Amino acid sequence: MNKANQISKSKNHTAVNIGSLEQLADHTLIHPVNKQLVVGKVFLKDITEATGSEISFNTLPPKTELSYFHFHEQNEETYMILKGSGDFQVDDDCFPISEGSVIRVAPKGIRCMRNTSEKAMIYIVVQSKEDSLQQYTTNDGGKIDYERKW
Amino acid sequence: MNKANQISKSKNHTAVNIGSLEQLADHTLIHPVNKQLVVGKVFLKDITEATGSEISFNTLPPKTELSYFHFHEQNEETYMILKGSGDFQVDDDCFPISEGSVIRVAPKGIRCMRNTSEKAMIYIVVQSKEDSLQQYTTNDGGKIDYERKW
Repeated sequence: MNKANQISKSKNHTAVNIGSLEQLADHTLIHPVNKQLVVGKVFLKDITEATGSEISFNTLPPKTELSYFHFHEQNEETYMILKGSGDFQVDDDCFPISEGSVIRVAPKGIRCMRNTSEKAMIYIVVQSKEDSLQQYTTNDGGKIDYERKW
Repeated sequence: MNKANQISKSKNHTAVNIGSLEQLADHTLIHPVNKQLVVGKVFLKDITEATGSEISFNTLPPKTELSYFHFHEQNEETYMILKGSGDFQVDDDCFPISEGSVIRVAPKGIRCMRNTSEKAMIYIVVQSKEDSLQQYTTNDGGKIDYERKW
């Protein structure tokens, strides 16, 4: 079950709260292909009505590894490790990861990871279409005067 | 200065470590437009060689607010609050945020936020082009047998 609560919505935004990182294990979902229960994962695209990326918060229990390698067709993935430590593998390259590690993987990269620590690994994955970003940050943004409502 | 260290790289990935969330304030950069020093922010696109999103880790000190409202031309933004609490505003809608809040803002949304808590607010922003994601998650990914190197 998805424990996210919607907190605000208008034509220009959708906001939810998924709870604290320690509560991530309360989120479960049924894997759409193999129909198995997945614990400690929440996908944000549908609940925030995003159209440019699929973001997920994920939990990997202590001393466990992802059960399979995978690749993508169109999408680049960026993994951000918030808690825990272990190893990440892309193709034949295997390297240690810990809090603050950020791994950008091209679609064809064959990837897997494991948590060798005594605590749950918590990580975020951002999936976006490779080569889709045309302009960014100050080139795409603009300041504007507006009234604060707080 | 950017304290990120590259930890691994191949044709299919680039991995860095930016340090723990508590060390985020060690990251500084010069704002490309107004040339002012920005403390506690690190952009990931260039250092991870990403092409589908610009991701940043950000710090907002206790009892402070962003100094201006802004909007975007092409890009959707998703804000993820990891620590701290306060308020977020999109156009005329103002709502409370805390750990676990996720806010997706359309390009035209005029946005600002403040941290009303006694600790630093830490948040991640993902910038990606609106309507750029064509397929995602299990529709875009595929399992593959591969040898673990750990």
